[in-house]
Amino acid sequence: MTEELRVAVVGAGMMGADHIRRITERISGARVAAIVEPDAGRAAAAAERAPGALAFAGLEEAIAADAIDAVLIATPGQFHAPVLRPALEAGLPILCEKPLTQDSASSLEILELEQRLDRPHIQVGFMRRFDAEYQQLREVIASGDSGELLMVRAVHRNPSVPESYTQQMLITDSVVHEFDVVPWLAGSRVVSVEVKFPRRNSLAPERLREPILVIMELENGVLVDVEMNVSVQFGYQVSTEAVLERGVARIGQPSGMQRWEAGQFLVKEHESFTTRFAAAYDAQIQRWVDAVRRGDLVDGPNAFDGYLVALSCEAGVRALTTPGAQPVTAVERPAFYA
Amino acid sequence: MTEELRVAVVGAGMMGADHIRRITERISGARVAAIVEPDAGRAAAAAERAPGALAFAGLEEAIAADAIDAVLIATPGQFHAPVLRPALEAGLPILCEKPLTQDSASSLEILELEQRLDRPHIQVGFMRRFDAEYQQLREVIASGDSGELLMVRAVHRNPSVPESYTQQMLITDSVVHEFDVVPWLAGSRVVSVEVKFPRRNSLAPERLREPILVIMELENGVLVDVEMNVSVQFGYQVSTEAVLERGVARIGQPSGMQRWEAGQFLVKEHESFTTRFAAAYDAQIQRWVDAVRRGDLVDGPNAFDGYLVALSCEAGVRALTTPGAQPVTAVERPAFYA
Amino acid sequence: MTEELRVAVVGAGMMGADHIRRITERISGARVAAIVEPDAGRAAAAAERAPGALAFAGLEEAIAADAIDAVLIATPGQFHAPVLRPALEAGLPILCEKPLTQDSASSLEILELEQRLDRPHIQVGFMRRFDAEYQQLREVIASGDSGELLMVRAVHRNPSVPESYTQQMLITDSVVHEFDVVPWLAGSRVVSVEVKFPRRNSLAPERLREPILVIMELENGVLVDVEMNVSVQFGYQVSTEAVLERGVARIGQPSGMQRWEAGQFLVKEHESFTTRFAAAYDAQIQRWVDAVRRGDLVDGPNAFDGYLVALSCEAGVRALTTPGAQPVTAVERPAFYA
Amino acid sequence: MTEELRVAVVGAGMMGADHIRRITERISGARVAAIVEPDAGRAAAAAERAPGALAFAGLEEAIAADAIDAVLIATPGQFHAPVLRPALEAGLPILCEKPLTQDSASSLEILELEQRLDRPHIQVGFMRRFDAEYQQLREVIASGDSGELLMVRAVHRNPSVPESYTQQMLITDSVVHEFDVVPWLAGSRVVSVEVKFPRRNSLAPERLREPILVIMELENGVLVDVEMNVSVQFGYQVSTEAVLERGVARIGQPSGMQRWEAGQFLVKEHESFTTRFAAAYDAQIQRWVDAVRRGDLVDGPNAFDGYLVALSCEAGVRALTTPGAQPVTAVERPAFYA
Repeated sequence: MTEELRVAVVGAGMMGADHIRRITERISGARVAAIVEPDAGRAAAAAERAPGALAFAGLEEAIAADAIDAVLIATPGQFHAPVLRPALEAGLPILCEKPLTQDSASSLEILELEQRLDRPHIQVGFMRRFDAEYQQLREVIASGDSGELLMVRAVHRNPSVPESYTQQMLITDSVVHEFDVVPWLAGSRVVSVEVKFPRRNSLAPERLREPILVIMELENGVLVDVEMNVSVQFGYQVSTEAVLERGVARIGQPSGMQRWEAGQFLVKEHESFTTRFAAAYDAQIQRWVDAVRRGDLVDGPNAFDGYLVALSCEAGVRALTTPGAQPVTAVERPAFYA
Repeated sequence: MTEELRVAVVGAGMMGADHIRRITERISGARVAAIVEPDAGRAAAAAERAPGALAFAGLEEAIAADAIDAVLIATPGQFHAPVLRPALEAGLPILCEKPLTQDSASSLEILELEQRLDRPHIQVGFMRRFDAEYQQLREVIASGDSGELLMVRAVHRNPSVPESYTQQMLITDSVVHEFDVVPWLAGSRVVSVEVKFPRRNSLAPERLREPILVIMELENGVLVDVEMNVSVQFGYQVSTEAVLERGVARIGQPSGMQRWEAGQFLVKEHESFTTRFAAAYDAQIQRWVDAVRRGDLVDGPNAFDGYLVALSCEAGVRALTTPGAQPVTAVERPAFYA
Repeated sequence: MTEELRVAVVGAGMMGADHIRRITERISGARVAAIVEPDAGRAAAAAERAPGALAFAGLEEAIAADAIDAVLIATPGQFHAPVLRPALEAGLPILCEKPLTQDSASSLEILELEQRLDRPHIQVGFMRRFDAEYQQLREVIASGDSGELLMVRAVHRNPSVPESYTQQMLITDSVVHEFDVVPWLAGSRVVSVEVKFPRRNSLAPERLREPILVIMELENGVLVDVEMNVSVQFGYQVSTEAVLERGVARIGQPSGMQRWEAGQFLVKEHESFTTRFAAAYDAQIQRWVDAVRRGDLVDGPNAFDGYLVALSCEAGVRALTTPGAQPVTAVERPAFYA
Repeated sequence: MTEELRVAVVGAGMMGADHIRRITERISGARVAAIVEPDAGRAAAAAERAPGALAFAGLEEAIAADAIDAVLIATPGQFHAPVLRPALEAGLPILCEKPLTQDSASSLEILELEQRLDRPHIQVGFMRRFDAEYQQLREVIASGDSGELLMVRAVHRNPSVPESYTQQMLITDSVVHEFDVVPWLAGSRVVSVEVKFPRRNSLAPERLREPILVIMELENGVLVDVEMNVSVQFGYQVSTEAVLERGVARIGQPSGMQRWEAGQFLVKEHESFTTRFAAAYDAQIQRWVDAVRRGDLVDGPNAFDGYLVALSCEAGVRALTTPGAQPVTAVERPAFYA
């Protein structure tokens, strides 16, 4: 395909607007051909950043107009399934922001629909897999140079969260990333999830009982602990330490310009995921566009990975209110997703 | 006291010999006046490093000879109680290597004996409290500048362990340090201990099921996880991260000369506790000598702290074979130790 | 301009091929429309990576064919002037790899030719200005938060150099970057250049007397020293330290995944400029494409900056054989380049 | 010698008082037996910290009283020679704070006096040689593992200086340390000294034209540049980078507890030499005491090293007002000091 890929972006909220900007200004080989957004104001604002993009109220209309080659879904999670269905029926390649759908049952339905096609068409937007450091960490683990992986010790810290952020979202909006990326690093899936409660942060919103310590076991015996902490005030920090048999590797440490000022040596910490993972978002979209243009359609986590994460989230949500390890039981991976 | 403190070192094995060298070569205001060691060969070797020291087969003889002002106990843990008793009866100040005694019941007996004296006479050799970084970490926590302490995430990694090291010693010889230093950092005692098992390190001796992840709860709600790992091969590493409400502080990170060689930026890691905590051992002895000369007798963890650690060790050993959090229940702290 | 910018890449050697790949695979809003390369083999190889690009033996033909909107010059430096002239005559925007031309006299001629147009059309490829850390360093200096800039201490280390690399190229190929970026950081131009000779590296090719220490004075009094070192073997390292009145800022330090292995803490160092400055090359081209599409034509160092660098290089080359500070004297900056 | 070494401390100003405290509280095997200080107030204050020390108005009296075994000279530099002479005549071992004397001519006289004894009796107080990182750096260089040493790039930054600090003291009080330690690192002596002037720090006292860049050549061709900067406000920083043929080693980088606070990753920088070199001062005195007790008398820089530093200082002071490299010419090293 030498033509530019015509992408429909569905949802023009914060995330969708960001992807529209990205495709328009950063990505080679693709353009935003359609913006699907029922809110007229948002649709108009988004259209300004994407010259030549057509506006549609629903994805079906964009499909009917033969205006698009691929779909990027950036609506809130509960609206993913209603967009995934017509996109799959039209046989379009899809990049779907995480989560795939909002529970494992609806994810299974989507898997069935997708399996009617000749090959996987859905990629799920777990962008950490495209971060250069996570990729290096995975290579170190996979190389076996330091022996087998034994433990993963992860930290996910946010300065604060918006008013809409609920206790369950500690799992479904935040730890959800570790549910995808840790199995990808470790080459083994999650078999149980447990939650421990440290002393509560008095700076957290009243509705939140956090931080939490999430403990996961993987099928290969690797133990994972994740400090999930969303009111740390000081910055945005995601770091991961892999404990191997004869070595340790660590990513997400301070980098960039170093300063000495007022008795201190200083390095600036990130303030949000938008800088911490900026390059990963770019790489994710560029690699997806390249894959679709090549005909591979998916180059990243697929819909079955999205289903596994939905299961871990369900176990994690149970663990928020139930002591002990909550088991995670999945259907067998279909050959289709091998 | 302008005279040098005359110290009896009891036990001239590896640890005792090291303390004899330290007092002789590094410490101001003290000298090794007596070496109490039944093994004649060891006693002779030790005496060479401490010119002028007298040799005794038992502490009672050294006391009878009026040759000493204070006692440093460096025998194996099971032989602490038989030395502590006559030393207390003679009213001598004591620096006792950890553990105080080998179980909480015998520790309680020693506490009762000590309380017959006018004030505490026993200091226990938890040397981490004398490490400059642990002290800085404690100041940061105590200052409240970053809000309350919420979690402590600790790492204790050894390159390997000797043949005599057993599964229980993961708790009683290694995590024992965290049982003392974490409550000291956090200002709150341990109320439960739990052990989780990651994938086993195939490089560990066959008798060991390790690494382990030890999870402690403190009375003030602080949650602590300790990665205890004694076959990491690559070096000796003890690091601690304090998660506070609006900040994080971390100690035990690589330091010293930095090199670039063969495509890498390198900093040497420690190989054993002897370099990692060399300055802490010096500081511990110097401060104890100063305290005794001033008449304060104790400047560090006292016998009641030693008893609390014995309780945590007992819970930790239970946790090695019993799932779930094992409670730690202590007698009330006597006013004598306030 | 909603259409993609049609770029002619002149020169399809290593650098040109890299830019062709970059425009084709990474850059939004531009495509390689023409490849100008007399070597038929190189031209063919390059064309494979740029589907749809036409091949031309000379730039004049591409212009005559009305096939292009802008020119990227990636030939060796001595062939820049013969390409710049027809491109300027055709009124095309130009991104010219460094150096502008190979001496200050020919640079002046190009400046005159360019000034017949309505505004600057030439951007020179000093890509360091597009590196995120150099930009942060410049902001710190410009902010005045740490007082005035006093010194710049720079390091430029290559593992090795190809056979074609000569003694003069220490200045014209390597220090040339500092001649552009340091004045840009400091807001002041170079007024003299001096070279000092440390002990010679026995691993350098016989024809090279290196490393060298290059000392520059800027008009505002700032003193700069640059360690220029091209046989360090261990990696590619470019770092810069700005000494301010009450602070210091440093860039180019090790970053990325950290490992512990075999008694060492390790971070990988770069091996060549292709990874160290990969993002800067991308950003340079993207911002130039954006500027041309907006009608700004230049968004970076202009031809007058290229002329100033040519003067510094001439002084630097003199300084290789003449002791003491060699003065740098420039014509006044025309208002055209203000 | 099993008895404690009886040390006379001459001079009880800031430095002398610090050494009195050090010998009394930190050093094994020595005690302050005499304080020689004409100022009665200072003498009394010092005596309080050294129980049992006798007070003398002059060193001769202490010698006559047969009260001392060794002399530590901590008077201002211009009063060193008058104390060195009687001490040498009495055949006492001496630790003399830097400089040996205040010029090379008087240093030569002292050398002659010393050579009447059977072996060197004077050690000069260049304490950096006892800093663990400088020792590691020297080992790396001496090992040859990274090839020959080519350059040394040094930084010496003070937050500010007292009112008594003059322009010459940039050389004689500050760079003086590099005049000793760099030749010791490099295994080669200084043959010329040059000074360059960057932009002046407006926060420096009016009488000071600083920072300065001091360039030294060593006999083996190694080139050294030292940034000497005494009004940096932000902290006390001494760092040194050794550029070797196939590697680089660097010391004096930030270390210790790491914090995240308010968007920043922070490590505390030193505020004065008293913390940066605290352990080096302790080690220097302990090793000197041990050497004297063993009968070696000197374990560190000797008087001939002190004479060489005096020569470098004289060249450096000339270089403050004379452009170009100022040569350093020394008498041959007597076999006595081999």
